[in-house]
Amino acid sequence: MDTGDVFDPNCPTRVVLDRIGDKWSALVLLCLAGGPMRFTRLRERIGGVTPKVLTQTLRAMEQDGLVTREVFAEVPPRVEYALTDLGHSLHDPMAAVAAWAEQHVGEILRSREMYS
Amino acid sequence: MDTGDVFDPNCPTRVVLDRIGDKWSALVLLCLAGGPMRFTRLRERIGGVTPKVLTQTLRAMEQDGLVTREVFAEVPPRVEYALTDLGHSLHDPMAAVAAWAEQHVGEILRSREMYS
Repeated sequence: MDTGDVFDPNCPTRVVLDRIGDKWSALVLLCLAGGPMRFTRLRERIGGVTPKVLTQTLRAMEQDGLVTREVFAEVPPRVEYALTDLGHSLHDPMAAVAAWAEQHVGEILRSREMYS
Repeated sequence: MDTGDVFDPNCPTRVVLDRIGDKWSALVLLCLAGGPMRFTRLRERIGGVTPKVLTQTLRAMEQDGLVTREVFAEVPPRVEYALTDLGHSLHDPMAAVAAWAEQHVGEILRSREMYS
């Protein structure tokens, strides 16, 4: 199979949508778009993410081929995360969704208040 | 507040990212982009969604100001869901992410197989 159909309940594209729809994956992707980063730097940059969740997110993204993990033989060893070409190809669509969220968060909060 | 910052852990933009990152919300949005739809038609079109989850998704989207629910005084009453202007403004970024998922699902599945 080479292309999917999000409207087919049996199509694995839905699993992919779930994964890339995850907030932490989106934030990691946006962070790494600027270049490789170490774990601690990613954690500082994203803010509010626990080490456990960040580790799980990075492992899932590595598994999906979006991120690479490179260990440099230094003392202490340095570990860097970077986007793959596939990861980079997701950047623009993701950045557009994040920009939409930043731009419209005020309207959404007002709508929620009016509704309740 | 008028614009948000996804990298600020205290910014409600993250709550918005979670909501719009939801797979079912994305599919409802893509469906309704073509015009208003009744519940049963939406359910058929999306496929694999339970009535309960579809109801919850639509209510959440209504609350966020993305969708309207209109009741027509007919026998039996007709209820139609439609995108608001805000909902329409999210269509293009969402469609780009869904298209990316459809286009790259093959690569992601191959990567997952190699990893395990």
